[in-house]
Amino acid sequence: MKALWLENQQLHLREDVPLPAKPGEALVKVRMAGVCGTDLEMVKGYYPFTGIPGHEFVGEVARIDNSRHDWIGKRVVGEINATCGTCEQCRGGRPTHCERRTVLGILNRDGVFAEYVNLPLENLHLVPDSVSDEAAVFVEPLAAALEIQQQVQIKPTDRILLVGAGRLGQLIAQTLALTGADLRVVARHPLQQNLLTKRGIKLVDEADVQPWRYDVVVEATGSTAGFELARKAIRPRGTFVLKSTYKGDITHNLSPVVVDEITIVGSRCGPFAPALRLLKNKEVDPTVLIAAEFGLRESIKAFDEAEKRGMLKVVVNCQ
Amino acid sequence: MKALWLENQQLHLREDVPLPAKPGEALVKVRMAGVCGTDLEMVKGYYPFTGIPGHEFVGEVARIDNSRHDWIGKRVVGEINATCGTCEQCRGGRPTHCERRTVLGILNRDGVFAEYVNLPLENLHLVPDSVSDEAAVFVEPLAAALEIQQQVQIKPTDRILLVGAGRLGQLIAQTLALTGADLRVVARHPLQQNLLTKRGIKLVDEADVQPWRYDVVVEATGSTAGFELARKAIRPRGTFVLKSTYKGDITHNLSPVVVDEITIVGSRCGPFAPALRLLKNKEVDPTVLIAAEFGLRESIKAFDEAEKRGMLKVVVNCQ
Repeated sequence: MKALWLENQQLHLREDVPLPAKPGEALVKVRMAGVCGTDLEMVKGYYPFTGIPGHEFVGEVARIDNSRHDWIGKRVVGEINATCGTCEQCRGGRPTHCERRTVLGILNRDGVFAEYVNLPLENLHLVPDSVSDEAAVFVEPLAAALEIQQQVQIKPTDRILLVGAGRLGQLIAQTLALTGADLRVVARHPLQQNLLTKRGIKLVDEADVQPWRYDVVVEATGSTAGFELARKAIRPRGTFVLKSTYKGDITHNLSPVVVDEITIVGSRCGPFAPALRLLKNKEVDPTVLIAAEFGLRESIKAFDEAEKRGMLKVVVNCQ
Repeated sequence: MKALWLENQQLHLREDVPLPAKPGEALVKVRMAGVCGTDLEMVKGYYPFTGIPGHEFVGEVARIDNSRHDWIGKRVVGEINATCGTCEQCRGGRPTHCERRTVLGILNRDGVFAEYVNLPLENLHLVPDSVSDEAAVFVEPLAAALEIQQQVQIKPTDRILLVGAGRLGQLIAQTLALTGADLRVVARHPLQQNLLTKRGIKLVDEADVQPWRYDVVVEATGSTAGFELARKAIRPRGTFVLKSTYKGDITHNLSPVVVDEITIVGSRCGPFAPALRLLKNKEVDPTVLIAAEFGLRESIKAFDEAEKRGMLKVVVNCQ
């Protein structure tokens, strides 16, 4: 089959990749895939990965276990962590932290910039007919945005600051706005700003961020500057959610974290079912983030496009 | 009156300090005071403070508002943060984070290495007769130990690792042991180890600390090495309690905090009333930590003694 291939930090388009065939897993024909920040980081060598990249997708079941035969031809999205079910993390109710996990297009498992992909049955979620491919391709990052509320109680009276309004930041902004809390977003690019103001989400200029003011601060830039700005905005006993991984080490003084009794919460993959519910009910609209669409043959170009400063979502049509 | 005086990182014993006389506050005759790590840090210039240091004490009410006239002569301990009652933190139920707070012997308020000290009435707590001066002098650090459980739910089934078994670490170990959780302590010095094993608290050798194992990890060394050891021991979605301030910056990689969805909780001053209850019921015994006692005239020597490696609590008898 055709697939994008990453090896030694180089992307190649290959025509000769064998059709994936993991025993016991479903075969899914990929319809659309999204380029994520993590994909770009992998090309830069941040994660050592060889194989087909990509983990955000919507597809159509091509082959599946008899027990779910009625799913053939149905549209699905898929959770990215394939788990063992027996390790301490799995048994402790933390399957996304499975000690033996493979991760779609990230860790020991081929991803979705391809014609077909394999995934365990239990990873798949049916996509309601009313949710378009262009919306469904965002389920994975939308679930990651919802992970914040899975981990931290957001009160309707909270003052929230979100630093960063890129691909993930926009989804975080849309979901946090649904809590009724007083949300302000630091967004650098006019395009990012426009998308937010169109939804009635309030912006705050970086220079106007008051220190010691916000009950909850979410950092979604992954930059040291974003981290520092976010850190200072938290009130004593407030919560600081880290929603980005950071390249390399960050140097900071932990004493104020102790003195102000700050809680820092690292946040990663989230729940798919509520993401699908929000999309079905049109409570969020990720499709406005799509800035460009490419075919699978042009997927290297898609990566180049996604790298551009301030670029929002680039999708690849794999059909 | 006689008092220890800190100025330009130098300690002096003064005989000529005027009797404290803050209008509206109680005057307390100091009976016993404890030397804390923070006091030692102040001498090293970590906090810029001029005046009488010291914030751990038990005393006896010498002068008080008519409304509490019956407290005259009674033994008291005192919360160290004197608050404004009107700022956003005070109104938000976070008085220990008052934006205009003064802090006993630490910030804009003379402390307890003296014959007398002033404190607002609402800061004082009566000490039950059955609690000795030697025990009551530990109420402030014992309250700080209990702040962990004020902030973080400790489940009886949790695996807890405590890194550091010094002055504060010992009190944390004693209080965490009461939860029934499976507690292990990294203690470097034989004296620290003996005190713990005598109470049936289990030790773990630094080299035997398994990574990714503990539900809750408490860091009480204030050192980078302690921080690193503690950090690695936390399981995915576990909680990392920082119970020490750190000199200078700590450099670390925040990405694992995000990937493993760790929660980091800074923890400082705690509640006095439960600390007094535990002492009254003999559920904890801090007096075993007292390694040396000095008179107020010898309080500079007391600081020198407290500085010694592995030294536990040094108290000053101010009577």
